[in-house]
Amino acid sequence: MQFPPASVNQFFRTYQITQFAVSDDETRLYFNTNMNGTMNIWALDLPDGFPYLYGATGQSASFIQPDPEGRFTAAALDDDGDENYQLYALPPEGGSPSLLFDTEEGEKHFVHEIRSSGDVYFASNKEQAAVLSGFRKNIFTGETEKLFEGAEGATFIKAVSPDGQKTAVTELRSNSHLPAYVVHGDVRKPLSMNPEGVHSTGDAVFVSNDALYMTSNEGGEFHDLWYIDLHQGTRKRVMQLSGENVEQLKWHEESGSLLIQTSKGVRDYLYLRSRDGSVEQLEAPVDVIEQISLAKSGAVYVLGMKAVDPVNIYKYERGTWKKITKNEVPGMKEEQLTAPKTVQYESFDGRKIEALWFQAPADADNGHVIFWPHGGPQAAERSQYRAVFQCFLNEGYSIFAPNFRGSTGYGASFMKLVEQDWGGGPRKDCVAGIEWLFDQGYCDPGRLFLIGGSYGGYMALLLAGRHSGYFRAVVDIFGVSNLFTFIESVPDHWKPVMASWLGDPVKDEARLQRDSPVTYLSSMQQPMLIIQGANDPRVVKEESDQIADALKRQGTKVDYLVLDDEGHGFSKKENEVKVYKRILGFLREHQQSSEE
Amino acid sequence: MQFPPASVNQFFRTYQITQFAVSDDETRLYFNTNMNGTMNIWALDLPDGFPYLYGATGQSASFIQPDPEGRFTAAALDDDGDENYQLYALPPEGGSPSLLFDTEEGEKHFVHEIRSSGDVYFASNKEQAAVLSGFRKNIFTGETEKLFEGAEGATFIKAVSPDGQKTAVTELRSNSHLPAYVVHGDVRKPLSMNPEGVHSTGDAVFVSNDALYMTSNEGGEFHDLWYIDLHQGTRKRVMQLSGENVEQLKWHEESGSLLIQTSKGVRDYLYLRSRDGSVEQLEAPVDVIEQISLAKSGAVYVLGMKAVDPVNIYKYERGTWKKITKNEVPGMKEEQLTAPKTVQYESFDGRKIEALWFQAPADADNGHVIFWPHGGPQAAERSQYRAVFQCFLNEGYSIFAPNFRGSTGYGASFMKLVEQDWGGGPRKDCVAGIEWLFDQGYCDPGRLFLIGGSYGGYMALLLAGRHSGYFRAVVDIFGVSNLFTFIESVPDHWKPVMASWLGDPVKDEARLQRDSPVTYLSSMQQPMLIIQGANDPRVVKEESDQIADALKRQGTKVDYLVLDDEGHGFSKKENEVKVYKRILGFLREHQQSSEE
Repeated sequence: MQFPPASVNQFFRTYQITQFAVSDDETRLYFNTNMNGTMNIWALDLPDGFPYLYGATGQSASFIQPDPEGRFTAAALDDDGDENYQLYALPPEGGSPSLLFDTEEGEKHFVHEIRSSGDVYFASNKEQAAVLSGFRKNIFTGETEKLFEGAEGATFIKAVSPDGQKTAVTELRSNSHLPAYVVHGDVRKPLSMNPEGVHSTGDAVFVSNDALYMTSNEGGEFHDLWYIDLHQGTRKRVMQLSGENVEQLKWHEESGSLLIQTSKGVRDYLYLRSRDGSVEQLEAPVDVIEQISLAKSGAVYVLGMKAVDPVNIYKYERGTWKKITKNEVPGMKEEQLTAPKTVQYESFDGRKIEALWFQAPADADNGHVIFWPHGGPQAAERSQYRAVFQCFLNEGYSIFAPNFRGSTGYGASFMKLVEQDWGGGPRKDCVAGIEWLFDQGYCDPGRLFLIGGSYGGYMALLLAGRHSGYFRAVVDIFGVSNLFTFIESVPDHWKPVMASWLGDPVKDEARLQRDSPVTYLSSMQQPMLIIQGANDPRVVKEESDQIADALKRQGTKVDYLVLDDEGHGFSKKENEVKVYKRILGFLREHQQSSEE
Repeated sequence: MQFPPASVNQFFRTYQITQFAVSDDETRLYFNTNMNGTMNIWALDLPDGFPYLYGATGQSASFIQPDPEGRFTAAALDDDGDENYQLYALPPEGGSPSLLFDTEEGEKHFVHEIRSSGDVYFASNKEQAAVLSGFRKNIFTGETEKLFEGAEGATFIKAVSPDGQKTAVTELRSNSHLPAYVVHGDVRKPLSMNPEGVHSTGDAVFVSNDALYMTSNEGGEFHDLWYIDLHQGTRKRVMQLSGENVEQLKWHEESGSLLIQTSKGVRDYLYLRSRDGSVEQLEAPVDVIEQISLAKSGAVYVLGMKAVDPVNIYKYERGTWKKITKNEVPGMKEEQLTAPKTVQYESFDGRKIEALWFQAPADADNGHVIFWPHGGPQAAERSQYRAVFQCFLNEGYSIFAPNFRGSTGYGASFMKLVEQDWGGGPRKDCVAGIEWLFDQGYCDPGRLFLIGGSYGGYMALLLAGRHSGYFRAVVDIFGVSNLFTFIESVPDHWKPVMASWLGDPVKDEARLQRDSPVTYLSSMQQPMLIIQGANDPRVVKEESDQIADALKRQGTKVDYLVLDDEGHGFSKKENEVKVYKRILGFLREHQQSSEE
């Protein structure tokens, strides 16, 4: 019996799962998913229930926390994807949520946790729009107490002591400078050794009212695990892994152990640190971990994915991982999808750059390669499931995705290298990557495509302008075309960091000119496909309008697709499929023909 | 902790499950559902798996049959809800379906079954558009053999003998005249005693090459169970239940027993008939049964629902029913929904009419009642989940839904009473029902609303015209307004039965005039809400246009809502919610105010 080959539809019929929570008694799992087409909280009765809709309003949750006494489930929900999350309580059996705090237009709550006393710990923009302030508010009595005021940057709660009196907070001074403090009444003391020195802190957990674990890269390149004794005023680095960032921490009070998630380059890892300080690695069921959870029973739950397996929730019990959800590509086994190889190459200045190489399956391979600069730029291309990648591979295109300088996961110094140098070093890393592809024989010159989104779209445009000869054709997905207009058009809360991140339009005029894709318009001669969401608040439509108009005027072949009902990304499955079908058509049209 | 009352959204967040199949080894359950927003085949690994998308193309299945040898799953799929089902094979692990038969435009297959030999038994409109012909086609060899030609009416396969040589077929002469035959080579013999006498046959199962069970109401009012010995040429009525229709039959070869589903009025029942002829009732987990299945192991699977529980799949094992799926109203327990009471009243001619009475919950009850004539008309209002009913009840409206003459489930004679009398007896049954409501104190005169769809919309319009004084306001959902134009506009394959079902425009002109709502336009003075799908092929938009225009001209307050992307029903969840929110608003607007 012959079946047709996999279709574009198959790869896109997976869904998102972005958050989960497990009830204290582990009888119910809650998760935020768009498995019915719209984001909503779903639940299932553990261990093996059929999933059911728990929230009834089509709202997405950024935070889910069932009350330990089962009186309600707290959730931070937004409306229509506006990311303006508000705190709600849902009835224990699910249904319609009830708003817990009356809020004014534009007010945002960054909820850290809710205690069984009804005390909610959160930061809010109500009094201090830019730097935020911290509050404790009781949902039963309405009593509100201010915990702290923000100072040098937006201040977020990372942990609350068992007695509720102390909060560990981080202060966002820049993407690479986030000192931590502990706030107790009117007293705010640094948890960092030197808050003024450039370093960042991450997760924190209290183990008693006077001691906590915290992650920090102070004095190093990677986030290590620190133990801080507030009573004695001492701090100790208790775990350091070579080239590995300690990311999420979960404290298991019953056994005195700590569940630790780390990241290293394109992958994540899991460890269990016992009371005696010994550390055991837990073989994770996925390569990229989005969320971890540790139940009172000691059971570990993980939300994560692999390049060949979409995002799912797993439970670790009796030495094995059980996949609780079953978000899979319909009809495709993991072995039928393509896993990437991690490769390294040397860049212009001798720096080693890591990249993911996805080789198209032999029976489909058409010899063409897609060069994919990731977004961010302070992010990374990791070993995660991307429907569009599997779709490209299935069509015969191989993919090369470099983690150029500025990417996360390779140390603090490496990440900082993109700051105030958007179009310099990272671009040259891309060029070195392309030359490496040719040298290694991974790609014939003349068979290279270029596709990127967001910062990756910016990089695609810049490469298209400055290194035009490399590419058959270029796809820009909501990329920045002009750094001057971009600086002016970003959301208000981005503006404080723009100078240190990108540059100042006056002081850095020459550099911004040099690094703006529009500067190189005349040399963009390859066919271009430009995709833009009309409502994008991050990279506004004018960025794409500008370049599409100019290219048309000079006679470059340009397709310009504007999605009227999208912002910075694809919230609607049908739009996502439409865009990627359009891209596939564009690639096919511009492939090397057999006569060439 | 206070939660908001149930919202309209909650009731509509349930989904459809229309078909299921279980693999022979009971390791996998397949079901057709729109749980992700679009109809598709889903699967779950039994006993307790998480459901996953099995078909990847967004097509609805009218037939699902996994190959016993696991080489494929056969399914009849349509495109975009066009009900033009074609036979496909899906890969064993799911994915993209492969068309099994090349077909021409407009060709339809009514697939009965597929054998592990690859033989498919089906009826097709290819050679005989109106009466159909039967074929056996092998999917591996492509070899095709004609089994029979239709004669007096559309002929459908009901059962195939174990050796594949005999088919039991029914012939649709009219809605109430369906004789059965057995076809063996060129020989076609009646299974009915007298095919010319008006009676109907239903399901059939072969128990050997020479014997079958069949359901028939020949010589009676209800479908009884018959055993027919083809070899000896004998037939025997082996089971007859008072007032109960035998509907679906499943044969368990291993034990020689028969699983039987019956219906009686508003409910369905399940029985197991053993080899020795003894019959045991199985307490069903639902009131209305859509589909039954009997595994080799003897396990029974049922698809069905109750008024307070949406459609789900259940398994009977070790004396208890297990609910495999969990299609529920988010956050609402069965006890929080309203179950109907079955009541009886006497009509104008002494005939007993059964009706469902849904009493609004005491804390919501607003004293108003909705009178709901069902569609069909040869159908019935049964004890099934209707989101809109629960929504009305939650808002405080009680509902009265009579099974007026012409309804199914009350015997063949009762069902025939609507034929050629659409606006007579059934209407008077409605009037008697209304008077009974007043007499019983179930409703104050002056607090009655009228809502109906399809034939129920026709009845709503007719009652609004002829008995205007009863109703505060009327909602017509794609109802017929003019019987003359309706007869002309129905789909082609309906036309042969129109004269016996409704009447002849010439011969029955006076009656059709008398029974057409438009005849009573001038007395329709209550506020009206008219809802119509622009693409409705059964009740075309002109039916609603006509009456909406005429009412506007005469000054009646009329709201007219046309759904551009719908036919006869609501395929899109958002349209369904929109319409019922509009109806709720309309009812609220026209409720009796406290001053009245």
